[in-house]
Order: sequence, then C-alpha cells, then structure tokens
Amino acid sequence: MSIPLDIAALGERAASMIEELGAISQSPDNLTRFFLTPEHRRAADLVGRWMREAGLEVSEDALGTVRGHWHPAGPDAPRLLIGSHIDTVADAGKYDGSMGVVLAILAMQAITRLGLTRPYGIDVLAFGDEEGTRFPTTLSASGAVAGIFSPANLAMVDPDGVSYREALVAYGKDPDDIPAAAYDPDKVIAYVEAHIEQGPVLEAEGEPLGVVTAIAGASRLSVTVTGEAGHAGTVPMRMRHDALLGAAEMALAVERIARADKHGMVATVGRMHIDPGSINVIPSRVVFTVDLRSGSDTSRRDALTRFEREAHRIAGQRQLGVVISAFHEVATVPCYQDLQLRLRRAITDVDHRAIAMPSGAGHDGQAMSKLCPIGMLFVRCRGGISHNPAEFASPQDMGLAAAALVRFIERFQLPHLENDTSGAET
Amino acid sequence: MSIPLDIAALGERAASMIEELGAISQSPDNLTRFFLTPEHRRAADLVGRWMREAGLEVSEDALGTVRGHWHPAGPDAPRLLIGSHIDTVADAGKYDGSMGVVLAILAMQAITRLGLTRPYGIDVLAFGDEEGTRFPTTLSASGAVAGIFSPANLAMVDPDGVSYREALVAYGKDPDDIPAAAYDPDKVIAYVEAHIEQGPVLEAEGEPLGVVTAIAGASRLSVTVTGEAGHAGTVPMRMRHDALLGAAEMALAVERIARADKHGMVATVGRMHIDPGSINVIPSRVVFTVDLRSGSDTSRRDALTRFEREAHRIAGQRQLGVVISAFHEVATVPCYQDLQLRLRRAITDVDHRAIAMPSGAGHDGQAMSKLCPIGMLFVRCRGGISHNPAEFASPQDMGLAAAALVRFIERFQLPHLENDTSGAET
Repeated sequence: MSIPLDIAALGERAASMIEELGAISQSPDNLTRFFLTPEHRRAADLVGRWMREAGLEVSEDALGTVRGHWHPAGPDAPRLLIGSHIDTVADAGKYDGSMGVVLAILAMQAITRLGLTRPYGIDVLAFGDEEGTRFPTTLSASGAVAGIFSPANLAMVDPDGVSYREALVAYGKDPDDIPAAAYDPDKVIAYVEAHIEQGPVLEAEGEPLGVVTAIAGASRLSVTVTGEAGHAGTVPMRMRHDALLGAAEMALAVERIARADKHGMVATVGRMHIDPGSINVIPSRVVFTVDLRSGSDTSRRDALTRFEREAHRIAGQRQLGVVISAFHEVATVPCYQDLQLRLRRAITDVDHRAIAMPSGAGHDGQAMSKLCPIGMLFVRCRGGISHNPAEFASPQDMGLAAAALVRFIERFQLPHLENDTSGAET
Repeated sequence: MSIPLDIAALGERAASMIEELGAISQSPDNLTRFFLTPEHRRAADLVGRWMREAGLEVSEDALGTVRGHWHPAGPDAPRLLIGSHIDTVADAGKYDGSMGVVLAILAMQAITRLGLTRPYGIDVLAFGDEEGTRFPTTLSASGAVAGIFSPANLAMVDPDGVSYREALVAYGKDPDDIPAAAYDPDKVIAYVEAHIEQGPVLEAEGEPLGVVTAIAGASRLSVTVTGEAGHAGTVPMRMRHDALLGAAEMALAVERIARADKHGMVATVGRMHIDPGSINVIPSRVVFTVDLRSGSDTSRRDALTRFEREAHRIAGQRQLGVVISAFHEVATVPCYQDLQLRLRRAITDVDHRAIAMPSGAGHDGQAMSKLCPIGMLFVRCRGGISHNPAEFASPQDMGLAAAALVRFIERFQLPHLENDTSGAET
C-alpha cells in the first residue's frame, strides 16, 4: 500500500490539463462551454482520450456524459463513482468542474498503473449539464445517471430557440436511450467529487483541502414592500411611509438572522428594485430578493420564520405593506458521514488539516444523492473567486488534492461503507 | 374697509376657472402644458382675458409672462406683485401654479370693483417656466422679471432639439427684449404667491391655509458604496463586504438625522442602484441619492456633515469604500417676516388658524427673492398629492384663500413694510 506520489508533478500535470481543456471555448476571448455544443464535443473527446491514457475504458451515455471505467472485478461488480462536470458558465474560470474531472483522471492513472485488485470498480464521470447555462435545467446529466432525469427537460428551449431534444439529436444522441443512462442503485457504492471551493474559507484557514459536510439547502424569497409615494420636499418625516427605509431595515434583519445562526448560514439580498426611483419622490414600492442557505434545513426553516416575523414587525412599525413569496426551495443534501471521515483521513495522509465546511454552491452531488451516498473534497481557490476568468487553484493544491484522492481510493474498502449507518468511523 | 365677500361663490368661480385652464393641454388625455408651446399661448390668452375682465390692464413680457396691472397711483408708483405660474409638469394636476394665478385674479376683481385708491399699484403675474419641464432651466420667467435671467438659458435645447431661443422667437418674442422684462428693484414692494401646499401638513392640521416661513434650501448627494462581490452561497457572513447592507445602514442614518432635526428637515433616499444585482451574488457596488431639505441652511449643512461622518463610520465598520458627492445645492429663501405676519392676519380675518410651515418644494419666489421681499400662502390639498392628476384643492378652501388675499391687500400699507427690518409686527 501507499503508492509513491510526486505531488508537484501531479499538480503540474493537472494545471497543464486544465489549460488544455480551458482553451476549448465557443469564443477565443473567454471560456464559454455550454451543454451539447461543438465545444462540449471537443472537450468530451479530450477527456475521453485522457481517460484512455489513464488506463480506463471509455463510453458515453445518452446525455454525453463521458465515463471512464476501471473494473478489476469485472463489469458487474459494484462501482465507486468519481466525477464532476465539463460545462461552464459564460465567461467562466477554468477550474469549476473541469478540475474535478482532471483530478479524478490523474488519481485513476496512479491507481491503474499498479494493477491493484479490488472487489469493486471505479467509474470516472464527466457531466455536461451542471451549470444549467444553456437550457433552464438543473443537473440534468447527473440526474440521468441517478435515474431522476425529467422528460420535461426535453422540451426546454435555449435562447436561440433550439430545444433540448433537438440539441441532443444534433449531438448524435437518442433521447430514448436516456433511461439506460441510469445506474442500478444496487450496483453503486458512492459518488465522490473534488471541486474548487468557490469561496474564501480555505484560503482564510491557510489550508489547501476541505471536506464538505453538506450541500446547503437554499430558499429564495421575493419580498415586496409597499408604502406611499410623496414629494421629497413636502412630506414631513413623521408622516412618511417610505418603502425603501422598510426594505433597508429588512435587509439588515436578513444579515442579523444569518449571523446569529450556528450552522454556517449565509443570506444575501442581491437584488433590490425601487419604485418610482426618482431623486425627489419618496419610494412607494421596493422589491428585493433574499437568498438564504444553510447546511441544516431546520435552521434554514427557522431563519425563514424569523425573517417573516421581523419583516412584518418592521412593516407594522412603519405602516408599510409586505408580501413575502418563496420561489425556490432546495433541501440540504448531507454528505455521508463515513465518506467525510475517509476524505478527512486522505487529507491527513497528505499531511494537511482537513477543514469541514458546508458547500453553499450547488453540485452534481445533489442529483447523485438520489442514487447513492455522496462525498465531496474542496480545493482552495484564490480570493474565493469563481464563475470568473480570475478563478484559480494552485498546482500545489491540485497536486495535494489528486494525491488525497489516490489515498482515499487506496484505503477504500467496500464493507466499511456498506455497514456504515451511524456515521461513526469503523 | 372690509369688502363683503362670498367665500363660497369665490371658491366656485376659482374651481370653474381652474377647470377651464386645466383643459388647455397638449394632449386630450391628460394635462401637459409646457413653456412656449401652443398650449402656453392659449392659456396665456385665457389668463389675459380674465385679467381684463377683472379690471386689469394686460401686457406680456419677452418671456411670455402675462401681467395684469392695477395702477390707482399711476404707472410709475411702486408695485406689489402677486403671481404664480401656468406651465405644468407632464401628466399634471390642475392646481399647481394655475390656482395661484386664478386666486390673484379673483382677489383683484374684488379690489378693482371698489375703486379704492392706494399710493402703489398691483401687478398680477402669470409665469410660464416654473417647472423646468421643457428646457433644463430653473425659474427662467420669474428670473427675467427679477433681473437675473441667464443668457445661457437661450442655448438650452428641448428633447425635440428646439433651442430656448428658437422657441422664444416662434412664440413671437425677441430675446433682445429680455432685459426690459426686469422690474426696477426700487419700484417693487414685495412678491406674494398663493400655491397648493403639495404636502399633507395642512390636511393633518385640519386647516385650509398656511403661511410659508421659508422656501427650504436643498442639497442632493450621490453616494457610491463599494464592497466586494462574491458567491451568495460560499462566502461566510463574517467575511463579507456587502455594499447593499452598508447602503441600507446609510439610508437609515439619513432618516435618523432628518428626524432629529428641529427645523422640519426632510431627507429622502429616492434612488438606489445595485451592482451586479443578481439574486446569488453579494452586491459589490451601490449608488444611491440623498435629497435633503431644510428651512435652515445651518441645520442643512450640519446634517450633511453628520451624514458624511455616519457614512464613513458605517463604511469603516464594514470595510467598504464610500464616496459622497454633492451635485445640487440651493440655499434657503426665507419669507419676509412682515409679509408672514400680514398673511397670518389675513387668514385670521377669514376665521381660520394660520399654520406656519416651510415649503419643501421650489417656487418662483426663489427667483423673485433676488428682486424683493417674498411671502407665500399655502392652500390645503387633498392627500398631499401633487404633480399628479389626482391633485385637488376644495372650492371652499380656494374661496377662503381668495378672501384672505383680498384681506391681505385691503390691509396692506406701504410704510409698514418699508420700515420692517426686524421681522416684528408693526
């Protein structure tokens, strides 16, 4: 055991692969790689070539997910799945998604070289629709793998008027094959993903790697505050019903509630629209959004209740109207305790302190959790910046992450996970 | 003394004149009457006819201001000026400006009937550019009368590309005659104007008439708050530099400062723009406006200093940047104490309690104050609504206002005003 690993070399290799993959874009000026486009095809072909070079057998499912198979125990043995996505947002960074695919391939390259035997196989998955940037879909590629693909997706239309179904056919796929993309839950052990953190916590902790405790549940609210318009010069302060001042107090209440939470809750007022929006008119109506996320659904629901109470108290004091409507709600997906402990140990194996943290951003693991236990490894990114060309993870950190994945696979033993229900390490 | 007055009849007559004047609009659907337009011409002609019917001699100056003269002591005797404006905002109410012209004419009708003699004359003025809605000008018609017309106005261009000069010529006027529109300051006693309140104070006080203490000075600020954008799901609360939360605190500080003021200060955050304005991104930049008015320039300047201090304190606590720039500044114009007392007495004469209050809105009196002492009478308007088709003053209130103007004129005596410098009633 304990494959000799050159962390620096792994990191350099990861960085050069990420550069090569990041050059595949619809535009020469920035990185934009949407689902089922020619760029997706070229990226999938490159990933497939790397998988073959890493000793994996390559296939592609009905949604274009590239699958690299290692099956020392034969094709019918249960599988550990490791993956991420190769689609991007518009004007993206090179690391989001791509890094997880590259690290999985590099780790498997180290594993396959040794001719290890295992009573299970490993599949590396490169999904093509995590970002939902082409169609108004959510995790449709991993959803198909998890057996929860919604046929309604096929009718979705991109901004150019091309339907999901048409795009799929143009990509050379047959929508009738989608059900066959689903894994048999009895044959899947777990899904593990490495991803850049997309936040500043690891950088602030001075550590390269983190273990995700849960993919945070999220609620999004639209809050409409109504007051009374009036001349900014003629209505005395005590006679005003200023919707903007009410909204300002409510935004500060959102912050107060999130800060008081013990589960790493984050809450954001990101949009605010003011009517009539004139310099010299008292605002009569303000609409703002609240995005609230927590690794605990209970704490998120409590916070929503508290916010509702606060908003009505503020509105009451100022004699304003307030209507709160929730328009988006995603439950927390906890990461499997045993997988968290194994990832933690893998980080210790590469001589680092594992930082436990929820993921505030969404990931393919949310869909995969419908199929099997999930676990996630976070990699420090510079300045917490993501969804931006400035996104960056250092070669050294990526080398450590690849090495940790190798250690995770090396130590992985089937019975431990199957017996784990309590979350305690065995 | 004490002309017998039928207040109800005066009110009904005012209401019917306002309806007739209010029907003169560029559109049949709403009231929009801009400076130097065919509508202005028609309104000016109607006002001129009414003035003649009221026993006044009518002329028109180089800016189209209609002037109705009563000169019992001959054309060279000093003048008391009473007026308001007949231009409107777009989709206006019928009372703003027009009511003051109508009430002045009705009051003069009562005066001229009696064949009173006085050692001075009275001119009723109907200005055409108070709202500044056609050209980006401010009080240019009353400015010409006051001798402060800026020649730069002539180069101003309306949204259709027509210059002020071209419009003036098309209206049949000669820009070279503008200097002659100015009154000789030695021949002017005072300027008095009746106007709807455009605010809710008189309604709340249950009184029809108010006496303006000052036309409030105003400052307008643009405040730019800069923070750090970030993913709404991944940046912990304690690591955020949220520009919107800083701006929210600053908006509440604006309110707090105005409420603490003892001079009827009003302050409004009317516009707020949030960047990037996405549901799931922490706001990185917020730009908002502050409109701050007070009847005391000292108190306004103190408030600006306090706001600046508060904004920097808030920015410092949240590690945000803040830049405050003042882009508009108008000094307070106090109403002449003696005129306030005379108007107050006139209100008592019609059996009402005079409410003293600053005017938060701007008026022709600001320009006229450069020529002579000014005074203003406010008339209650329903719901404090103005610049809106719902603007309304009741016939009864207008009848009382016309009667108060008559009493004001009846009691007016030249020496009293000229001797007043202390503001004490003589």
